[in-house]
Amino acid sequence: MTSVALCTINSSARSIARLCQASRSAHGTADFHSFVARYSTLRKCAFLPGGKWSFIRAATRQMSQGSPGRISLGRYGKGVFLAAGAAAVTGVLTAGVSHFQRAEMATKVSKVEEEKGDIRERCKSFMSVPVTDIKVLEQRKDAMCTRMEMLIMETQAAFCRALEEVDGGTFRVDRWSRKEGGGGISCVMQDGKVFEKAGVNVSVVFGNLTEEAAKQMRSRGKVLKGKDGKLPFCAMGVSSVIHPKNPHIPTVHFNYRYFEIEEADGTKQWWFGGGTDLTPVYIDLEDAAHFHKTLKEACDKHHPKYYPDFKKWCDNYFYIRHRAETRGIGGIFFDDLDSPNQEEVFNFVKSCAKTVVPCYLPIVNKHLNDSFTPEEKDWQQVRRGRYVEFNLVYDRGVKFGLATPGSRIESILMSLPLTARWEYMHEPTKGSKEAEMLEVLRNPKEWI
Amino acid sequence: MTSVALCTINSSARSIARLCQASRSAHGTADFHSFVARYSTLRKCAFLPGGKWSFIRAATRQMSQGSPGRISLGRYGKGVFLAAGAAAVTGVLTAGVSHFQRAEMATKVSKVEEEKGDIRERCKSFMSVPVTDIKVLEQRKDAMCTRMEMLIMETQAAFCRALEEVDGGTFRVDRWSRKEGGGGISCVMQDGKVFEKAGVNVSVVFGNLTEEAAKQMRSRGKVLKGKDGKLPFCAMGVSSVIHPKNPHIPTVHFNYRYFEIEEADGTKQWWFGGGTDLTPVYIDLEDAAHFHKTLKEACDKHHPKYYPDFKKWCDNYFYIRHRAETRGIGGIFFDDLDSPNQEEVFNFVKSCAKTVVPCYLPIVNKHLNDSFTPEEKDWQQVRRGRYVEFNLVYDRGVKFGLATPGSRIESILMSLPLTARWEYMHEPTKGSKEAEMLEVLRNPKEWI
Repeated sequence: MTSVALCTINSSARSIARLCQASRSAHGTADFHSFVARYSTLRKCAFLPGGKWSFIRAATRQMSQGSPGRISLGRYGKGVFLAAGAAAVTGVLTAGVSHFQRAEMATKVSKVEEEKGDIRERCKSFMSVPVTDIKVLEQRKDAMCTRMEMLIMETQAAFCRALEEVDGGTFRVDRWSRKEGGGGISCVMQDGKVFEKAGVNVSVVFGNLTEEAAKQMRSRGKVLKGKDGKLPFCAMGVSSVIHPKNPHIPTVHFNYRYFEIEEADGTKQWWFGGGTDLTPVYIDLEDAAHFHKTLKEACDKHHPKYYPDFKKWCDNYFYIRHRAETRGIGGIFFDDLDSPNQEEVFNFVKSCAKTVVPCYLPIVNKHLNDSFTPEEKDWQQVRRGRYVEFNLVYDRGVKFGLATPGSRIESILMSLPLTARWEYMHEPTKGSKEAEMLEVLRNPKEWI
Repeated sequence: MTSVALCTINSSARSIARLCQASRSAHGTADFHSFVARYSTLRKCAFLPGGKWSFIRAATRQMSQGSPGRISLGRYGKGVFLAAGAAAVTGVLTAGVSHFQRAEMATKVSKVEEEKGDIRERCKSFMSVPVTDIKVLEQRKDAMCTRMEMLIMETQAAFCRALEEVDGGTFRVDRWSRKEGGGGISCVMQDGKVFEKAGVNVSVVFGNLTEEAAKQMRSRGKVLKGKDGKLPFCAMGVSSVIHPKNPHIPTVHFNYRYFEIEEADGTKQWWFGGGTDLTPVYIDLEDAAHFHKTLKEACDKHHPKYYPDFKKWCDNYFYIRHRAETRGIGGIFFDDLDSPNQEEVFNFVKSCAKTVVPCYLPIVNKHLNDSFTPEEKDWQQVRRGRYVEFNLVYDRGVKFGLATPGSRIESILMSLPLTARWEYMHEPTKGSKEAEMLEVLRNPKEWI
C-alpha cells in the first residue's frame, strides 16, 4: 500500500517511461545541454494576488503576430470583445469586464517573483491550507518538497480561480488525509454554466516504500538501498480534467508531479513528470496551434528537444489502442525527468504548470458564445465515451489508483465526464466535421 | 492472435476459474453426481416457431403458488393484465395482446422437442443464417459444435423476438466474419421505446492455438499436445446485455459459451461456461426472488450444488472492487464446466439458456407502466456509470477482447449503455430508495 495519491499524482506510473524510451533516447537523460532560458520569461502569464492569472499578455502577443501558420488576431482577439455577449448567453456576468481588469492588474504585478514572499502570505490565495503544515513548510523553505508543494497549490488555485471567473460558479473544496501520511485537496465544480465537470486535484503523500516497490517505481529499475529495507518517500502532484458543456469548447487535462525517495546513506533519488493535453470535440486549427505553440514556447525555454519529444510521447501515451485513435490532439507528456539537475527540471515543470491557464482559457473564452445543435452535443457525448474508455482501460494512474486499496476513488475518478454516450457502430458521415475530427485522431499531426 | 471472438464468447476468460476455486472446490470437477433431471422439464418455457418464447407458463405457475417467501401472484400476474395499458403509454401496441396469444401458442407447441426437426428448418427462425454453413451443420448434426451453435442461435433469436415484441422496435442484425475462421451475428436495438440499448451477440470462431495459448486458456493449466505445436480449437457463445430506459426495469446480462480443443492424438478437450445476472436500479424483492428462483429451478434439475455455488461465484465475479459494491444483485456464473460428461453439461447449459426469457421478460412487463421522476432517471445513469466501470476495468472478456488485435470492438462494447453519468461524491440520502439499493450492493444477500 505504497500510497493513495500516487494514482492521481503519478498519472502515468513509472513504467510508461519504458513505452516511450524510443522517443526519449534521442536526448537520453544525461545529455541535456544549453538550457536557454528560465521560467522567469513565462512571467507574462502572471499569477496575481488572490489566486488569479493573467493571460491577456498571451492574447496581446497573438494579436501583434499574425504571420502565416501562426496564431493571428483571429478569434482569440474577438473573444475579448464577445465576452460580454457570452455573459448574456451563459450567465457568466463577469467574464467580459474582468478580462480587461486582469490586463491592468497584470501590468501592475508582473514583476512579482514566484517563490518570493512569505510562505504564510502565499498560502492565503490557495483553495485550502496546504497538505503539509505551514510551519513545516516554513522550516524547510528551500527543500524541493516545499517548493513543489507551493507550486502545485498555486497552480490549483490559479486554474480554479480562472475557471470560476469564466463560469460564475464556485469549486467545492474537499480536503482529505491519508492514514499512512499526507493527503490532498480536491476541487470539483459540477454542472456549472460553462463546465459540465471540472476537477483540479492536489495530493501530497509520504511514507515508506519497500525496496521492491521502490524499484518498480523507477522505470529504469535502479536498485535502491533502504534502511532496514524501508525507503522514506514523498510524492506530490496537481492534476486536472475539465469537461465543458459546449461541444465547441475542448476538454483539457494536465498533471505535474514530483517523486522523491531517500536511500539509507541519505542520497535522494528524485524525478518529475507531467504534461498538458487537449481533447476537442471538433477540430479548430487555430485552437490547436495556439495550444501547442504555448506549450512549445514553454518547452523551448528549457531545451529545444523537449517540445518535439514530449509532443510525440503525448501522442503515444494518449492512444486508445482498441479504437486506433488518440484521445485528443495531444500536447506534451513526460516522465522520469531528473536531468540535468533538480533546479533546471523544477524550473521547466514550473514553466509548464504556468502555461496551463494561457493554453486553455483563451480557447474557452473564444467559444463561450458558440451555438451548437443537438447533433453536435451527441457527438460530444460519443467522444466523452471514448474519454472514459481511455481513462478506465489505459490510463496507468487510474489503473494504479483503482488497484490500490485505500485510494480516494472520488479523486481518481473525478476525471470522468458528468455524462457520456456509447452508440453502436457510430461512424460520422463522410466529409462531415465529425469525420474531420476522427481523421485527426486517427492520424496525429504537427500543429505548429 | 488466438481469436477475435473469445472475448465476446468467453466473457470470463479462463483464469476467472482460479478466482473462484474456493467456491468451486466444494464440488470440484469430478464429483458431480445425481443429476436429478434433464432439460426437458424446462420445456414449459417453450421455444416457439418463429423464434418466440413462451413465459406464460412460468407466470401461471407463480400464480398458483403463493407460499410465503416464494413468488406469489403479486405483480407478475398483474403484468399480464396491465400490458394493454402499458402499450398505450409506451406505444408498444402489441404487448398486451401478444402476451395472451403466446399463452395459446405455448399450449399448442409445448411438446416440440428442441434439437428435433430438420436443421435447415430450425435455422429459418434465426436472426441470420448461422455462422457455420448449414450444409456443414447438417453433415455433423450430432457433434457438440453443431448442437451448441444451434442452441446459441436459438437463444439469440428467442430473446431478440421477445424483446422486439415488448419494445415494438426491431433489431439491427450485423453478420461479420473473422479472417482466421468463423465470425458472428450481432443484434442491436438502440434507443427503442422500452430499451435504451439491447445487444445480443453470437460468435463462432475456430482456428489453431499454440500450445502455450491453449495452456493459458485452461484455468487448470493442463499441458495439451498439438500436432507440430498447433491445436485446432473451436469457441462459440451467445452473450447479451439489455439496458432499458425506465429505471424501474433492471438491466440483464447473460452469456453461454463452449470451448473445444483437439489434441494431436485426436482427444478433444472441452468445457462450458456461462451465467445470467440482474442489475436493477432500485431493489424490488419480488423481482429479485423471481429471477433467482427461476435460475435455481433450472440449476436444481442438474445438481443441488449448482445454484448455491454459481450464485456465490456470480457475486464474487461481478464485484466492483474499487467501489466495494457488486454490479447488481447477481444470478449465476460458472466456468470451466466439463463434468460429469459432455451431454450432462450441455443439458445444464441448455436449461440455463432457456431460462433467460422467463427470468427477465416478466420483470420487464411488470414495470412497463411504472412512472419515474428525473431524480430516478439520474440515479439510473449513475448506476450505468458503475456498469461501465465494471465492464471496462474488471470484465475479463472485455479486457481480453480489447487487448486482442483484430477483435470486433463494436460487438465487445455493445454491452456499454447508451448513456451514463459520473457525479462527484454521489451518496444517496440516508433511508432513501437509492440508499436501500446501495446497501444491497454492498452486502450481497440470499434472495430465495
